[in-house]
Amino acid sequence: MGEWYRNGATVDHVSIASRGLHYGDGVFETIAIRNGAARLWRNHAERLQQGCECLGLRAPDTDDLLQQVEHAVASSDVPAAYSIVKIIVVAAPGLRGYGRPRPIDTETYVGAFVTHPVAIDKYRNGIDTMLCDTRLACGSPLAGLKTLNRLEQVLARSEVLEARLFEGLTLDADDRLICGTMSNVFIVVGNKITTPLLSRCGVAGVMRRHVIETLAAAGSEVHETDLCTTELAAADEVFLSNSQFGLLPVKSCDDWHWATGPVTADLMQRLADRGIQECQV
Amino acid sequence: MGEWYRNGATVDHVSIASRGLHYGDGVFETIAIRNGAARLWRNHAERLQQGCECLGLRAPDTDDLLQQVEHAVASSDVPAAYSIVKIIVVAAPGLRGYGRPRPIDTETYVGAFVTHPVAIDKYRNGIDTMLCDTRLACGSPLAGLKTLNRLEQVLARSEVLEARLFEGLTLDADDRLICGTMSNVFIVVGNKITTPLLSRCGVAGVMRRHVIETLAAAGSEVHETDLCTTELAAADEVFLSNSQFGLLPVKSCDDWHWATGPVTADLMQRLADRGIQECQV
Repeated sequence: MGEWYRNGATVDHVSIASRGLHYGDGVFETIAIRNGAARLWRNHAERLQQGCECLGLRAPDTDDLLQQVEHAVASSDVPAAYSIVKIIVVAAPGLRGYGRPRPIDTETYVGAFVTHPVAIDKYRNGIDTMLCDTRLACGSPLAGLKTLNRLEQVLARSEVLEARLFEGLTLDADDRLICGTMSNVFIVVGNKITTPLLSRCGVAGVMRRHVIETLAAAGSEVHETDLCTTELAAADEVFLSNSQFGLLPVKSCDDWHWATGPVTADLMQRLADRGIQECQV
Repeated sequence: MGEWYRNGATVDHVSIASRGLHYGDGVFETIAIRNGAARLWRNHAERLQQGCECLGLRAPDTDDLLQQVEHAVASSDVPAAYSIVKIIVVAAPGLRGYGRPRPIDTETYVGAFVTHPVAIDKYRNGIDTMLCDTRLACGSPLAGLKTLNRLEQVLARSEVLEARLFEGLTLDADDRLICGTMSNVFIVVGNKITTPLLSRCGVAGVMRRHVIETLAAAGSEVHETDLCTTELAAADEVFLSNSQFGLLPVKSCDDWHWATGPVTADLMQRLADRGIQECQV
């Protein structure tokens, strides 16, 4: 169930000349709709703006875009209490070939869909994960952005589905730990919380930012640095963040096992207090 | 002018749920139609098969695909003597999210378009190029493939259009010379011909392969190896290959200049003798 909209009208197709189809020439956001509101809207809007800027595309007006999101939720048959919205901003069709027409216009599509919460036991007991064989390329000019070029995530995700797991962790080509296929990863040693630097590849998630800001508000710093599997294996606690599920403890990755420790539990309570209702366990 | 086809019928749109739009989950080929035939068809068909295999997608039957190409040229208003066909093979829509439905089906789109030859003086005197600021990420699991994830090329191509040049050369994040935005690059020192290794990033062009095979048939080996701008600057001759234009000498890249030398001239004649009519100068 769900529906796509463009400029307020339902739409079920895009031009076959779409630069999204041909080159992935655009960016997207997936936003949690909770209790009728677009959760972490400011984070999403800012990342979308930043992505458009890096790609040389004109970003949609943020206030207008929020209205489009609210319209999509209200007009479709999805529950405003708990659903998901995807925004796609894509370079308008033009010339054949990599070169864009100049000036370049953009098209914005907003879709609202039914989604379901992750089972409460996964929040309480953690999830099982795997290390994906698929590696992320390093030194991308698109590092950190949520562009429409997502084949690495598609391939890594295929491994995870094949293994019937909830999530997989990915390394870059130089053996650095980067993120999950659809989440960001944090490791805890004692009271120190670390998350991979995303300057070479990976997606800087809006919930990752919210976790960092939530911890900062509590006086804790998250260290963004290069990490590899040695640090992962030696961690006391490991958790993942994602705009939809919020935060989930990781209880295993292949043969490594972790408990849901006090730092993760404390953070979950803080997130629940700051609007991430799923973390109230 | 031009027209897209799917299963023999004209089509002007794809589903908004297309995994091509959302993730670039597919591959493509652009094929030169010359004198009514799909030039270097075997090379294109093999790369398409290889790309589908790496992506875990079912490739279309090669004979059936060639019929679709011929149908597109015959049915559209493009000249069979000189035009261009683009094939897109994309994972069929399914689940929301990176995960593909299993088993995964594919959709094949074939478009035929008018195109124009590059002016003869560019074959005789060479082209001016630039070094792009946009870098290619290293260590991609998609290295060599012509996937629908082409944002790096779009960004590099934007620089080239901005500078009003014909082509630009791109380096990877580790300063290696990789390719042009829409071509492969070769450098000549004396009689030795070298081209960048494409094991970490870049697209292995069908004309690149044809150049290598043409030289092999003449008893010359092309050395595939890591190259940087030092080797480029020190070259006696530089040339580019591409499925549409065949081969073009490079006369400059920013402040570096090269003559059209004897190795390039000899190769152009050999290519002309092996079906690349544009190289007959």
